[in-house]
Amino acid sequence: MADGLAVSVSRALAEASPMAERLFGTLAEKTADTVGVTRASYGEGEQFAHDLLAATARSLDLDIATDWAGNLYMTLPGRDRSRPALMTGSHLDSVPRGGNYDGAAGVIAAVTAVAALRRAGLRPSQDITVMATRAEESGSWFKGRHGGHLGARMALGLLWPDELETAIRIDTGRSLAWHIAAAGFDPKKATEGPPRLARERIGAWIELHIEQGPVLLTEGYPVGIVTAIRGILAAREVKVLGAYAHAGATPESYRQDAALAAVDFIAGMDRHAEAVRARGGDLTFTVGKINTDAALHSMTKVAGEVRFSMDIRSRDQAALDGIPPVAARLAAEVEARRRARIELGGFAPTPAAAMDAGLRRLLAQGAIELGIRAKELPCGASHDTVDFASVGVPAAMIFVRNANGSHNPDEAMEFADFAEGTRLLAMLLARLSSGD
Amino acid sequence: MADGLAVSVSRALAEASPMAERLFGTLAEKTADTVGVTRASYGEGEQFAHDLLAATARSLDLDIATDWAGNLYMTLPGRDRSRPALMTGSHLDSVPRGGNYDGAAGVIAAVTAVAALRRAGLRPSQDITVMATRAEESGSWFKGRHGGHLGARMALGLLWPDELETAIRIDTGRSLAWHIAAAGFDPKKATEGPPRLARERIGAWIELHIEQGPVLLTEGYPVGIVTAIRGILAAREVKVLGAYAHAGATPESYRQDAALAAVDFIAGMDRHAEAVRARGGDLTFTVGKINTDAALHSMTKVAGEVRFSMDIRSRDQAALDGIPPVAARLAAEVEARRRARIELGGFAPTPAAAMDAGLRRLLAQGAIELGIRAKELPCGASHDTVDFASVGVPAAMIFVRNANGSHNPDEAMEFADFAEGTRLLAMLLARLSSGD
Repeated sequence: MADGLAVSVSRALAEASPMAERLFGTLAEKTADTVGVTRASYGEGEQFAHDLLAATARSLDLDIATDWAGNLYMTLPGRDRSRPALMTGSHLDSVPRGGNYDGAAGVIAAVTAVAALRRAGLRPSQDITVMATRAEESGSWFKGRHGGHLGARMALGLLWPDELETAIRIDTGRSLAWHIAAAGFDPKKATEGPPRLARERIGAWIELHIEQGPVLLTEGYPVGIVTAIRGILAAREVKVLGAYAHAGATPESYRQDAALAAVDFIAGMDRHAEAVRARGGDLTFTVGKINTDAALHSMTKVAGEVRFSMDIRSRDQAALDGIPPVAARLAAEVEARRRARIELGGFAPTPAAAMDAGLRRLLAQGAIELGIRAKELPCGASHDTVDFASVGVPAAMIFVRNANGSHNPDEAMEFADFAEGTRLLAMLLARLSSGD
Repeated sequence: MADGLAVSVSRALAEASPMAERLFGTLAEKTADTVGVTRASYGEGEQFAHDLLAATARSLDLDIATDWAGNLYMTLPGRDRSRPALMTGSHLDSVPRGGNYDGAAGVIAAVTAVAALRRAGLRPSQDITVMATRAEESGSWFKGRHGGHLGARMALGLLWPDELETAIRIDTGRSLAWHIAAAGFDPKKATEGPPRLARERIGAWIELHIEQGPVLLTEGYPVGIVTAIRGILAAREVKVLGAYAHAGATPESYRQDAALAAVDFIAGMDRHAEAVRARGGDLTFTVGKINTDAALHSMTKVAGEVRFSMDIRSRDQAALDGIPPVAARLAAEVEARRRARIELGGFAPTPAAAMDAGLRRLLAQGAIELGIRAKELPCGASHDTVDFASVGVPAAMIFVRNANGSHNPDEAMEFADFAEGTRLLAMLLARLSSGD
């Protein structure tokens, strides 16, 4: 990329900054809840955000389209429209009473970058399409059997056969199909026929997102370049079934202690995760919920039942594939020792996704050229990017430093950091689309 | 004891059996709740039971008295009334929707035994007093700061200075003092002046009680002879404070995982208890309750807070005295490793109480002479007997086989087993009071 272009893109970005700030401000104001923001998947707040971004894109003279699932596409046309498009974007929904940046930052960055490229006079070699997905936060809004990331997965043709009916929104009790129709789209067409996005029509997918952990903040980097997105094995509710018994009058040899069985099992899983990490592997193990039964438990009774959740992540799919047999063997050992039953209840898998090596290299080089301090790190949360990667699209993610995590009203992204991330995104798009 | 006396006492007991059965039936019927029975400490059901037993004792021509706390004394006068009395009994209250036998069995057995001794023509060398205590189940009925076993502790002068006001009945919100007055007694006098029961006026205390564990049932003994009552260290709510964080985006080295800290701590305490038992010591360790915070926990968040209870028992006071330093050391280790804070919150102690060696020997010999299969075993639950032992009264307990534990509507004591326990009690009283 010519230095002249870098300078003019940077200048154009500076000029586009007020638009980005205004978009964040309008979203925060118009989708405010008692605390934080609420933009339900296929709900009012999400719709407001889609309308706002579409109007902005229209004012920038981008081509506007939606698909039958309600995903929004905003395209800067390329010189050769037959070439696979560069795609970039994120989602516009939020968790209930969440923060303003998780998702929206990626869409606003993408629209801002494309506006700057156009303002800088770039005529890209191929289409650059900003995509605002629907229902990425479906894990917080839909119960029942579903695979999450509903909008992106519909666009990519990845929805399970009955998922339109088995995904039920928690607050309304209505199905995904009902909500798509109520939002003015067509659930039938969203899943029938060829997918809206064919893998071979996408040259690359790049998503900018706030970091949801503390690494960039703690280590002093405004921007991160994601190496891989961790896959997940989720066990929503492991049940340990023992027998309630008097704490003083029941000898150890008669006990079926569900609490100590759960402790043994969790400690064993934690030891396994530590061993994998000690070998240089990547494996996180989280028990976010653990509970005895409030209706039956007592300080003076051996616990008859304990339920807990497990969330296990790795950027290495093989490490995840090793978990179910380890858990089964450990459960059997604990069952024998504690005379309790352990029902694992199965693991819901989300595959790990490596980021494209070429895109990662371009981002790392671009950061050096632009003088942006950027750290390579894995991504522990799942994103729409996983779905693009899963069908073979070269994919990348840019993280922006953020305090207080995400999925809460206290997300705190500095606009200056957002601007650096957007600059890195714009330069990558410019570089990828400046050839012929 | 002469064989003739044993025969006539056994015959007299058989004749007194219908009275005992009738008392159990009346109590079950008149204090029935939706399920099980409810005889609140200083409540209606307890009062009914006291009135019923007093009327029965009156019909047996026993001397009747109450103290200022409402404990009931039913005395068969001895030849020498200046000698320390033999005392036997238990409590008449129950937990909410509990069983009919926990407590009441000991009072009915004592009245039945005394009735049989009188019927057999025994004129005891000293007074034999049946005591029906108040509020033994105060752990289930009273919240706030109190030491439990309120009735017996008042009679023995063991109440803490402000306990009359700090013990608050859960269902009424009224103080212990208020409830004593409402039941027609005098809370001031219950705690001022010399105690109603002076240690030197009691020759022995014997309590018959259903077993609350499964040992006699499983091993096929109708009756048990208690070796010691386990002391208790109770930690009602240990708090483990970490920090909520994203399960995928937070590297291990940044986590303050309250769940894994709790698991490490509990596993460490369990290992300590196992080590004590492996050395032949007696130590039970029970975590009856463990909970993350339902308002804040999530499968995909590192747990920021876990609360759990600990109930630790031993018949060996030294083993209990060793627990607080072990727990403090372990907590400090886990805090350092997991970067979480552990607030133990202090241990409420109930001392261990060895049963009197002489009384145990007499019971064991008596069981052999009477042909009753009896097993020696420790008692894991606390009872009024602990308080008598704590002031130095020679104390003993007889267990009666019982299915399904206690403190629930499914207590299941066979009347035949109760009759064997009562026979052993009557023989002990006869032997102790037949000298001069």
